[in-house]
Amino acid sequence: MTIQEIAEWLKGEILGGDSRIAQEILNVAKIEEAAQGTITFLANPKYEKYLENTQASAVLVSRKLDTRKYEHRSSLVFIKVDDPYVAFLQVLKHFTPKIELFNSGIHPTAFIASNAQIGENVSLGPNVVVGEQAVIGRGTKVGAGCVVGNYTHIGEDCTFYPNVVVYHQCQIGNRVNLHSGVVVGSDGFGFAPQSDGSYEKIPQLGIVVIEDDVEIGANTTIDRATIGETRICRGVKLDNLIQIAHNVVVGENTVIAAQTGISGSTKIGKNCQIAGQVGIAGHIHIADRTVILAQSGVPNNIEEPGKTLFGYPADDARKAQRAYIGLKMLPDTIREIAALQKKVTELENKISELQHKEK
Amino acid sequence: MTIQEIAEWLKGEILGGDSRIAQEILNVAKIEEAAQGTITFLANPKYEKYLENTQASAVLVSRKLDTRKYEHRSSLVFIKVDDPYVAFLQVLKHFTPKIELFNSGIHPTAFIASNAQIGENVSLGPNVVVGEQAVIGRGTKVGAGCVVGNYTHIGEDCTFYPNVVVYHQCQIGNRVNLHSGVVVGSDGFGFAPQSDGSYEKIPQLGIVVIEDDVEIGANTTIDRATIGETRICRGVKLDNLIQIAHNVVVGENTVIAAQTGISGSTKIGKNCQIAGQVGIAGHIHIADRTVILAQSGVPNNIEEPGKTLFGYPADDARKAQRAYIGLKMLPDTIREIAALQKKVTELENKISELQHKEK
Amino acid sequence: MTIQEIAEWLKGEILGGDSRIAQEILNVAKIEEAAQGTITFLANPKYEKYLENTQASAVLVSRKLDTRKYEHRSSLVFIKVDDPYVAFLQVLKHFTPKIELFNSGIHPTAFIASNAQIGENVSLGPNVVVGEQAVIGRGTKVGAGCVVGNYTHIGEDCTFYPNVVVYHQCQIGNRVNLHSGVVVGSDGFGFAPQSDGSYEKIPQLGIVVIEDDVEIGANTTIDRATIGETRICRGVKLDNLIQIAHNVVVGENTVIAAQTGISGSTKIGKNCQIAGQVGIAGHIHIADRTVILAQSGVPNNIEEPGKTLFGYPADDARKAQRAYIGLKMLPDTIREIAALQKKVTELENKISELQHKEK
Repeated sequence: MTIQEIAEWLKGEILGGDSRIAQEILNVAKIEEAAQGTITFLANPKYEKYLENTQASAVLVSRKLDTRKYEHRSSLVFIKVDDPYVAFLQVLKHFTPKIELFNSGIHPTAFIASNAQIGENVSLGPNVVVGEQAVIGRGTKVGAGCVVGNYTHIGEDCTFYPNVVVYHQCQIGNRVNLHSGVVVGSDGFGFAPQSDGSYEKIPQLGIVVIEDDVEIGANTTIDRATIGETRICRGVKLDNLIQIAHNVVVGENTVIAAQTGISGSTKIGKNCQIAGQVGIAGHIHIADRTVILAQSGVPNNIEEPGKTLFGYPADDARKAQRAYIGLKMLPDTIREIAALQKKVTELENKISELQHKEK
Repeated sequence: MTIQEIAEWLKGEILGGDSRIAQEILNVAKIEEAAQGTITFLANPKYEKYLENTQASAVLVSRKLDTRKYEHRSSLVFIKVDDPYVAFLQVLKHFTPKIELFNSGIHPTAFIASNAQIGENVSLGPNVVVGEQAVIGRGTKVGAGCVVGNYTHIGEDCTFYPNVVVYHQCQIGNRVNLHSGVVVGSDGFGFAPQSDGSYEKIPQLGIVVIEDDVEIGANTTIDRATIGETRICRGVKLDNLIQIAHNVVVGENTVIAAQTGISGSTKIGKNCQIAGQVGIAGHIHIADRTVILAQSGVPNNIEEPGKTLFGYPADDARKAQRAYIGLKMLPDTIREIAALQKKVTELENKISELQHKEK
Repeated sequence: MTIQEIAEWLKGEILGGDSRIAQEILNVAKIEEAAQGTITFLANPKYEKYLENTQASAVLVSRKLDTRKYEHRSSLVFIKVDDPYVAFLQVLKHFTPKIELFNSGIHPTAFIASNAQIGENVSLGPNVVVGEQAVIGRGTKVGAGCVVGNYTHIGEDCTFYPNVVVYHQCQIGNRVNLHSGVVVGSDGFGFAPQSDGSYEKIPQLGIVVIEDDVEIGANTTIDRATIGETRICRGVKLDNLIQIAHNVVVGENTVIAAQTGISGSTKIGKNCQIAGQVGIAGHIHIADRTVILAQSGVPNNIEEPGKTLFGYPADDARKAQRAYIGLKMLPDTIREIAALQKKVTELENKISELQHKEK
């Protein structure tokens, strides 16, 4: 595609209309690494400095950007669009190479229980294991070494990367992507203390339900419920190395970043954004649209929707960040208090003296 | 079983003795999701509100519960027991479906070194690999894709879920459950700094010993010792995504929740309870029966047994929680100090004035 | 080797020259567990107490150690060396048993795409999968159940332990060790919010590059770049359960301990030391030789090289540790302020009174 064709396709406005707009675009690139023949984008103002030097042939920018100051960059064509990031995504998809990552059909080393049901156009990689009575929907691709437990149902057009394990009896919707090392349906962490100090295992009889359009990052673990279900609702996106405990519910379109952990029986609302390394206590609920910043600890219910929280115990983020800045001043603060105490004692003495003289 | 039979079996007291107690119980359920024909329980007072609406046919409650206020719930039979949770566990086990999760015998795709020893009634799933001189005890079940290293000994009646890896020379006791993605015996993190800024690997020659009745959650990692052993003692329960570094010892019947990390050579006592996302420094020891709350950081020895700790540096939990609440007030505190400083300066001026007049 | 031979080999000084130095050393051991016939070492002063009781036959100590106080330990031979830990490493390597952990050659159950290139002396374990156009360099050992994606290039003399997954198109250098459960090249966590609250996946088209002499611990995850590359530079050592997000660069010879997470597009400098459970924000850079203590959170650029940081927001470690100690005193501090406020009010009243009398 030429620059002009791309601009027309994205309904963008070309700045400058000279011969350069007929140039063919060969690839996409990051603004700081772009070579000639590539198209890039500017969305985060932090990166605007790269407009001075980028070797890209075209750059997608916001309609609000004042491009006059870049008129000297004569080799660079600006395409103004409403949302340069969204426009870039379109371009990105257009240039995505069609590498086939999964073999077509059933690999001869895949082991499928005789009573499992495999849909049309399913890809099963080498050494895949599909258990008794399991169901895999049409168009689903299961990478090498994945294990699908007995009685587990998997929907259509899912992608499981190599070495995923889904335990028995779980239910997975359509268009679910599980990255390598994901474990779904492992036993919840439940043990009843005995009088001799040992623990007896509480059977974990429930299941995991993952609804449609969920993506789960590498090595994330999702435990099955004690009874009932652990549920990851439609559109949820989980990053790598996350822990979801038994009987948790993660609401629709909530996104959670890496290494966060959610304790047992907690219900997370819809459209929440939870950053990395957050810990959320068990048996609580988090309101819809809650934003929780990185490394926070949430011990209690969050009742009011749409708040941004930080710290431990997680609280209004601005207030909490001021508190953490105050923490750094604390040794000074303590010194100031000691100085004040000394001054007040001096004042008390002086006043006693004055009062004494009065008499 | 009928409600009456269950009550007799559990030595419980039935509240109301009418025809309903002959009803057949078909399944177990959580109180908030229970349907007719199920039995549920009430242990945590937080859930008492569900007694107003639960559709369960029977509910196990504490002998202390005042059930008179629920007399209008005529469809609900109360069974009073000493410990409703323990009683429910009994019922839970009774209703556990007998789903066979592992194939019987040795799957034809399992690869077993010719000098490995496999006990009676061992189940090896598809693609299991058992190394040279390895030993697997009678009744142990090894799921698909597990790898048992050379010279590793595994006891009797263990359950390894799919895709577990145990490196070479490790020793695993009886009735040990390892969930999918667990790695036992990976190299400890030891590198000696060189004068040019690079690092030389320190060989990790030790092993991991896991004693009897241990359960380890999905994707948890346990490193082998540099020399000697990393040891997980009898009855320990580890949740998912935990890191146990080289030469650590975790004492008997200690339980550790998800995403906690224990640094090298640290010794954890017996019967400790360590919550999630805790970090424990290396080369220290933690006394028996220590309780450590979530997200704490423990930099030093804990000498006194039975304490409950929180925060960084982990300290008496009540004191630490007050401190974190104080942290939220810190910006106000700092403002108050500034106001005090101003007032004290004013007082100083007034006193100078008074002293001056005196003269 | 005898004690005398070891001392000569390490250019150490033997304390005492009697018949004991002809004793044969059979193994290495930790000082607190050493038996007769073993050699041990003392590097950390914390362990000096064990010199009173260790059963080792020889102990490597610093030339600076005053051994006169141990003259009564007649069964113990001291070998003084410049660096007892480095010397012990030499001995450790000498005593490392030659256990062959990987089969030689290509296991018959390995599945290799017909157009993949496998170098000389490569070991591929049972059930290994090597994708289309993949390249594996000479001398590399790939453990059971590993999956090497299409178009991925792996260098020479690497060691991949069982069940590692490297996605398509990644580049891995020479002498790279990947422990079990490592995932390299999973999709970065990128989703574009849509007006209906759902998210659209941003294709992750970049790759992961791992340079020479890198070691990566069990179950660590390294995401592929959105565009361009995620890069782990030469000599980097990563512990277990670490998260490296898309487009991150980790500089040469940086070491990172377990459970740390680095967010997208962040650049870590060379020769940094990052402890466990640290979180580093996205789109920032960390100067060379930065040391970050455990559980810290780094939200902003670290510009000055060689600093030691702690806490949130990570700051000069000594200052931050004083702040956390101050935090524990905070409830007392707040009480002191209230007391001061009371006193100041009293003083104000007294002064008003004095001023009133004056008039």
